[in-house]
Amino acid sequence: MTIEPFSAVDLIAQKRDQGQLTKSEIDWFIGAYLRDVVADEQMSAMLMAILLNGMASEEISNLTNAYIESGNKMDWSELTKITADKHSTGGVGDKITLPLVCVAAACGLMVPQLSGRGLGHTGGTLDKLESIPGWQANLNQAQMLEVMQAAGAVICAANESLAPADRRIYALRDVTATVESIPLIAASIMSKKIAEGTSSLVLDVKVGSGAFMKSADRARELAKTMVDIGNSAGVKTSALLTAMDVPLGHSAGNALEVKETLEVLAGGGPADVIELTIALAREMFATAGVIPEKDPETSLQDGSAMDVWRTMITAQGGQVDAPLPQARYSHTVKADKSGYLTNLDALAVGTTAWLLGAGRARKEDQVQAGAGVTWHAIPGQQVVEGQELFGLHTDDESRLPQALGVLADGFAIGTKEEIQPRLPLIIERVS
Amino acid sequence: MTIEPFSAVDLIAQKRDQGQLTKSEIDWFIGAYLRDVVADEQMSAMLMAILLNGMASEEISNLTNAYIESGNKMDWSELTKITADKHSTGGVGDKITLPLVCVAAACGLMVPQLSGRGLGHTGGTLDKLESIPGWQANLNQAQMLEVMQAAGAVICAANESLAPADRRIYALRDVTATVESIPLIAASIMSKKIAEGTSSLVLDVKVGSGAFMKSADRARELAKTMVDIGNSAGVKTSALLTAMDVPLGHSAGNALEVKETLEVLAGGGPADVIELTIALAREMFATAGVIPEKDPETSLQDGSAMDVWRTMITAQGGQVDAPLPQARYSHTVKADKSGYLTNLDALAVGTTAWLLGAGRARKEDQVQAGAGVTWHAIPGQQVVEGQELFGLHTDDESRLPQALGVLADGFAIGTKEEIQPRLPLIIERVS
Repeated sequence: MTIEPFSAVDLIAQKRDQGQLTKSEIDWFIGAYLRDVVADEQMSAMLMAILLNGMASEEISNLTNAYIESGNKMDWSELTKITADKHSTGGVGDKITLPLVCVAAACGLMVPQLSGRGLGHTGGTLDKLESIPGWQANLNQAQMLEVMQAAGAVICAANESLAPADRRIYALRDVTATVESIPLIAASIMSKKIAEGTSSLVLDVKVGSGAFMKSADRARELAKTMVDIGNSAGVKTSALLTAMDVPLGHSAGNALEVKETLEVLAGGGPADVIELTIALAREMFATAGVIPEKDPETSLQDGSAMDVWRTMITAQGGQVDAPLPQARYSHTVKADKSGYLTNLDALAVGTTAWLLGAGRARKEDQVQAGAGVTWHAIPGQQVVEGQELFGLHTDDESRLPQALGVLADGFAIGTKEEIQPRLPLIIERVS
Repeated sequence: MTIEPFSAVDLIAQKRDQGQLTKSEIDWFIGAYLRDVVADEQMSAMLMAILLNGMASEEISNLTNAYIESGNKMDWSELTKITADKHSTGGVGDKITLPLVCVAAACGLMVPQLSGRGLGHTGGTLDKLESIPGWQANLNQAQMLEVMQAAGAVICAANESLAPADRRIYALRDVTATVESIPLIAASIMSKKIAEGTSSLVLDVKVGSGAFMKSADRARELAKTMVDIGNSAGVKTSALLTAMDVPLGHSAGNALEVKETLEVLAGGGPADVIELTIALAREMFATAGVIPEKDPETSLQDGSAMDVWRTMITAQGGQVDAPLPQARYSHTVKADKSGYLTNLDALAVGTTAWLLGAGRARKEDQVQAGAGVTWHAIPGQQVVEGQELFGLHTDDESRLPQALGVLADGFAIGTKEEIQPRLPLIIERVS
């Protein structure tokens, strides 16, 4: 029998009584949890104590480090270019990662992006890319290196050996109502990004109804916490707080968002998607301390970002010219009167897409590649009676009534005076 | 598959966010836990949220009730006398239950006492009685009735079918640092006492170094909480806050405390034990609303309390005239100078007895019947150099050095001015 240097009960009591845990206490608690010396019920009590009593920034850094040390750390020192990555806290219609990694690579960075799947009303980057026939999410480190050397960027699933402590603890947080803790969210996100081995990182922290953080204050706190963790771990990190009161672009859904990405990479696409992509690309270069080889906007016009896309998707088995899947059923919602679209709620649109089959309620659920919502007007625009406002797409017609019900509460047509105020697309920079 | 009316995660989140749980929510959560629908880790997160965010008095009553409803409830309506019971939150040298139930029965009450075993530095009533050769702690309800009809009182172990939810949750609290919660302590104690079927109850809530509640404020809050639960469940309940800064009587240990009990029942014994026994007996009659058939003090002088003892112990198989076990080794601590005993710390004395073998560190540990500490002076008394101050008793001589070390920090000899202030034995009444 090993003599343990700490007692789980004592450490839980310490956090319960608003004490601070030392590095060796945190290292032991996480390590002992993985050795099944600390039980699930003890970890749960600790997580609730952390959620309610908080953690000092030193504790959060130490927790992040304990997560990282529980697994492997990737190393890209073989690459000849500086690595940079981006992480979004998740939004509706948020396909920005797709054009962004192409722009960043086209202008001289290397992007080793480990991405995730969607849960609830927010989409997941891997789910979107998996709508491309043949595309493979699972790569080993050698394959990642190969794709990056060929394309300048890679997007794939995080390997199981990366921060396994976070994976196990996240599953526990999910069932114990301990997800909504800034220290725990920050440690979870940052451990994976730091273990990924990127040398710089830009965080896109969303604010608004469709975001995990409903208020700018909470989003700012999360951003600041993550920026501090990154910088103290030697990863140059900054963050933008951006709007998620209204969904991004004109579509939410897996193949639908890939289609919109292709429009952007072809030099067109929705103005907000372009604006946010360019802003985040500039932020990635600024944070990495690299002067872009060309202006990021140019890369969308001259086809170089599209070239990255085609090389990257092809390298991961994707049939880049194959038609994207389409949903079996489509339903159109028309304007029932003339006026102005006074609002378009991100949460309602995200939930509609989810209910149509684009997202999952539980991790083990399947998503439909073609399902989702498209919208043909944005808040503040004038609409006329009978005009097409929304397209709802699903493989399963029986999902339509509930989805339509949710969507109906998410928009309104009214007078110019009734147009609801919106958050600025880019709220502020946190560094 | 049963459709569950509530979601465990939602209810944990509600308590996490300082919400109040309804009766049906609490009933479901506890019931679902026993059905393994709510997992240990979810219960642990809920317990930590309750500990940190508290519970309204209605929630505490509902939790107590859910514990009671998880098992059987005893019924003493066959008895011709009023039932009354007493519960102590645990102290050092606290053998009061033993003479008290005899006094109460001798004066006209019936006492159906379900008692527990000791853990840590506080003793357990069952451990003390088990030092009597042949005495049996486990009785069924029919046997309890028989003993009560013969003796007027019974002390035995709580049946597994009584408040099983509390038993399972207590085991979880023990490993998750969620013991120290007034709502959880109160619901745990009161559920067992209410399920026991007593019609009235007096609580002896200890305050001081040797008590679970170190401050009078916390003890008062616990007392008030338990008194409210009892009264709203139809059990007439009151409480006394009593001192536990100094140990009670002159001994701490199982057979040692039975010996002291016999002295009290024979009309002698330490003044504080007599005073507290009588005060609690009077409180039991007052709370039950019964006029005692004789003065409680008289019952100690006229042998009637001793008669109850002999009948009760004999009815449970105890050899009432057999010699009590003695420890194999004894060690005497003498005064190293003359002066006054300026203090005698209850926690230090309790820990000494525990280390000598009188108590257990874990539930599964065995206790020694003869082990413990006796003291021959009480704080404020004058002592002379060379006088015997303490006797340490154990079956395992190797335990002596550590026990002596702890005891040494628990008392001092000094000048009259250095005598430390003490709490009054009976601090206040809470009803």
